[in-house]
Amino acid sequence: IDLLLNSKQAMSMSAYFENMLVLNMSNSIFVDCTSSEEVAGYYERILASNISIVTPNKKANSGSYSSYQKLKATASKRGVRFLYETNVGAGLPVINTLNDLLISGDKALRIEAVLSGTLNFIFSSFNGNRKFSEIVKEAKEKGFTEPDPRDDLNGMDVARKALILSREIGLQLELSDVQVENLVPEECRGEMSVEEFFTRLENFNSHYSGLFDKANGKGEKLRYMAVIENGRARVSLASVGANHPFFSLAGSDNIILLTTERYKERPMVIRGPGAGAEVTAAGVFADIIRIGNYTN
Amino acid sequence: IDLLLNSKQAMSMSAYFENMLVLNMSNSIFVDCTSSEEVAGYYERILASNISIVTPNKKANSGSYSSYQKLKATASKRGVRFLYETNVGAGLPVINTLNDLLISGDKALRIEAVLSGTLNFIFSSFNGNRKFSEIVKEAKEKGFTEPDPRDDLNGMDVARKALILSREIGLQLELSDVQVENLVPEECRGEMSVEEFFTRLENFNSHYSGLFDKANGKGEKLRYMAVIENGRARVSLASVGANHPFFSLAGSDNIILLTTERYKERPMVIRGPGAGAEVTAAGVFADIIRIGNYTN
Repeated sequence: IDLLLNSKQAMSMSAYFENMLVLNMSNSIFVDCTSSEEVAGYYERILASNISIVTPNKKANSGSYSSYQKLKATASKRGVRFLYETNVGAGLPVINTLNDLLISGDKALRIEAVLSGTLNFIFSSFNGNRKFSEIVKEAKEKGFTEPDPRDDLNGMDVARKALILSREIGLQLELSDVQVENLVPEECRGEMSVEEFFTRLENFNSHYSGLFDKANGKGEKLRYMAVIENGRARVSLASVGANHPFFSLAGSDNIILLTTERYKERPMVIRGPGAGAEVTAAGVFADIIRIGNYTN
Repeated sequence: IDLLLNSKQAMSMSAYFENMLVLNMSNSIFVDCTSSEEVAGYYERILASNISIVTPNKKANSGSYSSYQKLKATASKRGVRFLYETNVGAGLPVINTLNDLLISGDKALRIEAVLSGTLNFIFSSFNGNRKFSEIVKEAKEKGFTEPDPRDDLNGMDVARKALILSREIGLQLELSDVQVENLVPEECRGEMSVEEFFTRLENFNSHYSGLFDKANGKGEKLRYMAVIENGRARVSLASVGANHPFFSLAGSDNIILLTTERYKERPMVIRGPGAGAEVTAAGVFADIIRIGNYTN
């Protein structure tokens, strides 16, 4: 650390990576805990240098399909690992479970999931007594949303997760193939401050309470969910009845239903807190230890 | 196969194992799909011969604590694997998920689980309109129970699973330490034919319908569940209210709630079909492939 503090060299990402690759540290693990697209851009060269990667960063796997494929191929060719269990559902065992099913010959028929703790918090708090804009403001104040809550409401985070699950089950989809319902009203999109966004959002409270009333009238609840089936992925606000496993989902939990050839009559269900520093760090750590197990 | 059919040597388990061990097949995998205590008795020597073991057979892990410990130590010393994901919940990712949490520094606070598809089928079918003995008979006719349904009703299968989970989270328990509620009335235990058992069981229908009425009166449902907490494991018939995750459990599903330091506010939940040849075979196969990954 002394060296680092006294260094005359300015911090630079490219210098960092060049140094790392020059040092030729094969059999080590690069752990990327950023959500940076720039860092993800180095993955290919890192894997090609026989360094494994563990990351919660979704950017690489939700980029172009060809680069997703190339990362997998490079890791396999070099005999290193590229693990990203925390890309979907943080510490919940989603990607590994799916892969265990598939490598043992199972076939995914349908995946349904609530993958945004933020949106689930918003829609499970939105009970008809308070305005939608107030709930979103509360979620922001509690630190549950991105600094700009539109980054949650636009559905792109869920779309990236749905894309990654789609690719894991063998679908060759691009992010643009995922059908995404953007919950940000058109008039609230584009360049404006977060304050301005909240002011404009108030004009749409009746729209959202209308959606709530319609669902509530049928005894249903609103859930922002991802559905992958028949080679397609979509992400949208739907309402589910009391018999649906998503009906009782509370707080900021995530839930994933895997319907496969083997789990056909009744799906396999994985549920629990799907966001947060602690559970994500734990998932990253488990991936790191998994690599230790592979190579011991 | 020709060789096998024409062999003059009678089949013998000990001869089979002696041959296997003499052949010195290190780096191979022994897959035990029996539920035999005799086969489990060979595990120690198999692991000591640098052969990995994959098995759904619970006998070894629910035997004495010292032999459970010794198997783990031998596997570790020899650098081979002893994997038994299917011991609990068949293909559901229970043991591996628990281990991923623990090796990354988490601590289990409480495990609650419904681990018998058979007993869950019986208690979710037992709705007050039909006699308990009839439901058990139906479960037997559908092939959901052991040939003698008392082998399910005595709770020992669930107790063995609870014991294995207890040991996985670090408790040094013996099977005799698990508090087990035996659902077979005393008068129906001991040596008697299955027919005789069913005849005697009819005398206890009012006892079971009393339990049902009591739970039903509180809006609760009967569930035969395992609870591990404060260093203890117990297995018993309990009733759960509408807010409990086990309330909506249907058919022969299993469910496992993991409450840990990290999943403290809300547990991690894994649910789905936890028995059956297909999902168990898949789990065994996934364990086999996992070993392939470790050693490639």
